[in-house]
Amino acid sequence: MTIEFLAPSADKTVLEGDGAFTPRFDEAGLVTAVVTDARDGAVLMLAHMNSEALALTLQTGIAHYYSRSRGKIWKKGETSGNLQKVVEVLTDCDQDAVLLKVSVAGHDASCHTGRRSCFYRAVRIDDGAPLLEVVDEQRHFDPHAVYGEGAH
Amino acid sequence: MTIEFLAPSADKTVLEGDGAFTPRFDEAGLVTAVVTDARDGAVLMLAHMNSEALALTLQTGIAHYYSRSRGKIWKKGETSGNLQKVVEVLTDCDQDAVLLKVSVAGHDASCHTGRRSCFYRAVRIDDGAPLLEVVDEQRHFDPHAVYGEGAH
Repeated sequence: MTIEFLAPSADKTVLEGDGAFTPRFDEAGLVTAVVTDARDGAVLMLAHMNSEALALTLQTGIAHYYSRSRGKIWKKGETSGNLQKVVEVLTDCDQDAVLLKVSVAGHDASCHTGRRSCFYRAVRIDDGAPLLEVVDEQRHFDPHAVYGEGAH
Repeated sequence: MTIEFLAPSADKTVLEGDGAFTPRFDEAGLVTAVVTDARDGAVLMLAHMNSEALALTLQTGIAHYYSRSRGKIWKKGETSGNLQKVVEVLTDCDQDAVLLKVSVAGHDASCHTGRRSCFYRAVRIDDGAPLLEVVDEQRHFDPHAVYGEGAH
């Protein structure tokens, strides 16, 4: 089975309805993916998918993304073991984004820093200056042990 | 008070740490914003912010975005009354996305279709074809009454 996506309709009523899923890939061929933990809805990360990554995700039930920095398909967790099993995929009103509700295997972490979520810092304003405060210190794995010393 | 953002560090350790919030705007000058309901964590929508929208959001505590289709700042809810009061702003490991936890005023709806969330459809695979199923039929307001007959 190879999933193929039809071209999106120019008619907004069709685009917002319950017919075919016709993702609106941007000029770089990507849609944005918001990833949440199916367990409690926590936002884990944000990534991008090209047509191939989206098809692979739907076909295999395991989240695949497109790495803009590496220019290739990226099976999330292939190195760290933190695979994301897809529980549900939703799309938004104009079909240029998807919401993946996932169950995380391995260390229960989705951030390369070892944290559960990439959103581990809150923005505070201090005397007009925007600062970051770490709100989740818990590392579920050691990035250097998992990715090697070259890990960032 | 006008919030200004410093240029992001090229050092990933700095970028991932707890110093200054230095958003990494893309080549179009935008970061992606994931918006959740502070009440229960439900993902409401996805939008984009330029430097001005992000600064206005942090300064006023009301979510402002940048409309790529209209090419201007967009105070969410200005027409519909569904303003988003910002409870917390977080950023991700590489600072190119923000997570806004908000409290929604007005109709308690963030989608222009009148639904609470823009992610009101799930993707199903039917005989290899990707289809959409509406999983939230509840309209909190009538888009035509709020936005006029030209509303999409």
